[in-house]
Amino acid sequence: MKSRTKNFNVSTPSGFPEFSPVKEQVRQNWLKTIVQIYEQYGFSPIYTPIIERTENLLGKGGNPKEMYVLDRYLSDESADKDAEKSRALRFDHTVPFALYVARHFNELSFPFKRQAIGPVFRGERAQKGRFRQFDQCDIDVIGNGKLSILHDAQIPAIIIEIFTKLLPKNDFVVRINNRRILLGFFASIGIVANKVKKALDIVDDLEKLSEEKIRENFLTENILEEQATKILNFVKISGNNSEILEALKNLQIENAEFLAGLNDLKIVIKSLEAMGLKSKYYKIDLKIARGLDYYTGTVFETNLVGYEKIGSICSGGRYDDLGEVFSGKSLPAVGISIGLTRLLGQLFDAEIIEPVKQTKTEILIIHIGEDALPKALEIAQNLRTSGLFVENYLDDKKLPKKFDYADKLKIPYVLTLGENEINANVVQVKNMETGSKEDVKIDKLIEFFKK
Amino acid sequence: MKSRTKNFNVSTPSGFPEFSPVKEQVRQNWLKTIVQIYEQYGFSPIYTPIIERTENLLGKGGNPKEMYVLDRYLSDESADKDAEKSRALRFDHTVPFALYVARHFNELSFPFKRQAIGPVFRGERAQKGRFRQFDQCDIDVIGNGKLSILHDAQIPAIIIEIFTKLLPKNDFVVRINNRRILLGFFASIGIVANKVKKALDIVDDLEKLSEEKIRENFLTENILEEQATKILNFVKISGNNSEILEALKNLQIENAEFLAGLNDLKIVIKSLEAMGLKSKYYKIDLKIARGLDYYTGTVFETNLVGYEKIGSICSGGRYDDLGEVFSGKSLPAVGISIGLTRLLGQLFDAEIIEPVKQTKTEILIIHIGEDALPKALEIAQNLRTSGLFVENYLDDKKLPKKFDYADKLKIPYVLTLGENEINANVVQVKNMETGSKEDVKIDKLIEFFKK
Repeated sequence: MKSRTKNFNVSTPSGFPEFSPVKEQVRQNWLKTIVQIYEQYGFSPIYTPIIERTENLLGKGGNPKEMYVLDRYLSDESADKDAEKSRALRFDHTVPFALYVARHFNELSFPFKRQAIGPVFRGERAQKGRFRQFDQCDIDVIGNGKLSILHDAQIPAIIIEIFTKLLPKNDFVVRINNRRILLGFFASIGIVANKVKKALDIVDDLEKLSEEKIRENFLTENILEEQATKILNFVKISGNNSEILEALKNLQIENAEFLAGLNDLKIVIKSLEAMGLKSKYYKIDLKIARGLDYYTGTVFETNLVGYEKIGSICSGGRYDDLGEVFSGKSLPAVGISIGLTRLLGQLFDAEIIEPVKQTKTEILIIHIGEDALPKALEIAQNLRTSGLFVENYLDDKKLPKKFDYADKLKIPYVLTLGENEINANVVQVKNMETGSKEDVKIDKLIEFFKK
Repeated sequence: MKSRTKNFNVSTPSGFPEFSPVKEQVRQNWLKTIVQIYEQYGFSPIYTPIIERTENLLGKGGNPKEMYVLDRYLSDESADKDAEKSRALRFDHTVPFALYVARHFNELSFPFKRQAIGPVFRGERAQKGRFRQFDQCDIDVIGNGKLSILHDAQIPAIIIEIFTKLLPKNDFVVRINNRRILLGFFASIGIVANKVKKALDIVDDLEKLSEEKIRENFLTENILEEQATKILNFVKISGNNSEILEALKNLQIENAEFLAGLNDLKIVIKSLEAMGLKSKYYKIDLKIARGLDYYTGTVFETNLVGYEKIGSICSGGRYDDLGEVFSGKSLPAVGISIGLTRLLGQLFDAEIIEPVKQTKTEILIIHIGEDALPKALEIAQNLRTSGLFVENYLDDKKLPKKFDYADKLKIPYVLTLGENEINANVVQVKNMETGSKEDVKIDKLIEFFKK
């Protein structure tokens, strides 16, 4: 994408995405499906600013090294001080959501279910597939004081619905865990409170690092070899969902945190069974810990079977404390996010999905001679009114050049009309795929194309 | 929107927009219509970075006082230098489009028609309706070397199609002019070349300022009172489109620029007539000049009849030179932009459009007692699979509270099921509008709601 003209470097800034129509139309189709399914489960869209107060973004979760803050190119005395680093680009939709809820608390009906779709920005080191601007498609449900664990169980159903629609040929699996199970287990084997967060982070790396390296990391944190072994054995517990739940029960751990987490996980699994979702699409995986600080219970990751190296294609979980930061009220929540731009980039690269045709145009109309122009314009307008996608070829070129345009853009039909056709009240319709031509009465054209 | 919690000021930063579901859903409906009509005329979407090199944005049209540049909150030695004011937020889609064409010149089929929809940023002084972040919905067609004036004539057709769909109860008018007519006329009355741009800017203010003020402005630019009078009489030429074209011809101005502009304007009007568009929707208005530097021919503005003070709801024009800046090639173009966020803000304020219901949810399912939960979940899933919008009420509340939720969100149907219903294989369906209740067999539910 490097190119340089005169004094301008016109290439995209490193790490910023660009999609041509052949890919952008795929992105828009995906968005339509995602939005519709989110809506079918009761999540209504909101629109929040891309720019927020820096202090709010730093307040919870923002990485100051990756945060883009704003200034003006030239400062303007008369402008209010909305620049000068006091404003920053949002890095996710969760903090803006917490701010939205704090602002509108008194107008909202709880549980409040919303979707938010749009660009977020993270100044990460530029690398393949890790755009610095990317669209996230989030849903969250937030309760006032309480939020039933049953809401957590809706999430995998939504993920399954979306990806069976979007990737019908691929298998995927929503992996489910509950952090309270891990935290309770850590406590039960004597890991002290101030090491628990570190232990969680190390578990989160289990699929990225070797077991040797993991053991090393535990030791670095003064977690004993014996404890490390117990943790590694614990997270490897496998089987189908019932078997894992049974195995966890059989450990007879008396820790309250562990038992509460286990109970919640059981409810989530039972609910998914009740919904009749195919069991191949979801499974308990005790290795799932999620890096982010704010998760407090259920956590989700989703992987494409055979393409695990792409990482999670949809993640999220329960966060019972984040809402409180801005509102001072207890606002437990659960949600997920699909990192659409990054995901599509990877799916195109892996050729799991294919670009589409550049244009939706179905019919190109070519008029032969200036006198045929008014009729050609009129026909185009009538066809479009009936819902068809139609272009007139308007530039002064030789006829083969005009057909070339239809060829290159893979437009399926070309209509030509000149004096003869107009006199006979017909147009010549060429099927660009088969090469066949036929004359069609002008007043039968809509009928012709509608079948 | 002011509210303050603990140490956080959670209000939106001044000038940044926020839409709740009742308005955001309207925005999304508008977007759908706009995208579809753009596509029906052959304009395919592209996705371009929100962040561009500052030097490129300043290269053509960017106002440095309104331009947001980026920095990192904490600089990271290891990060590449994509911050430090060398990157800025785009202020329109036209410059990014010119950059896109420069980058992809060799892959494109010309004429290249694209749409671009997304947020742009201008650090203007905050005032009602002038958001600093707003979505623009643009189309442009760009030619390689040449671009027929007939492309200009497609634009009003597209605007008319869009606003008859979006505002079926309102009249609007696309006002059309050609800058070459104005420029040629200015030359013909002896205004010197280096005053022409100023004269154009003054004409552009005609609808904002009094005639007295306009005359004053002409004088300030050393445009003679006699010339000012001629200009004012010229731009006031009125009548229907044929009458205005006739009047312009009858002026017998021999200036080549004037005649070329007049010829182009005539072609645009004739094409619109050929397309069969209602004449009330478009008219020649010689006052239309457009502020932006880069327009070179046809210019458009669109006004809502009776709401002219809202300003233009869709504007654009021909710009034959902009593409060349980045590509070094002659790339004439014509396009328009709808400033969607600002426009919707104003239409809501003027009550020309109304907010919608908060949610698309059609059915709320309430289970009575824990034993009814699995069936309630299963029913919801089945109804959604058939395309319906369905929520389960999942939190532990008293029954009236659950009905309150449906009431507040204006959900039209509530289904309840408890032990009795499950035994009888029915649910109770309550129509929330009429209050009527009836039992419906579970396996007849889809049928019930589909009619």
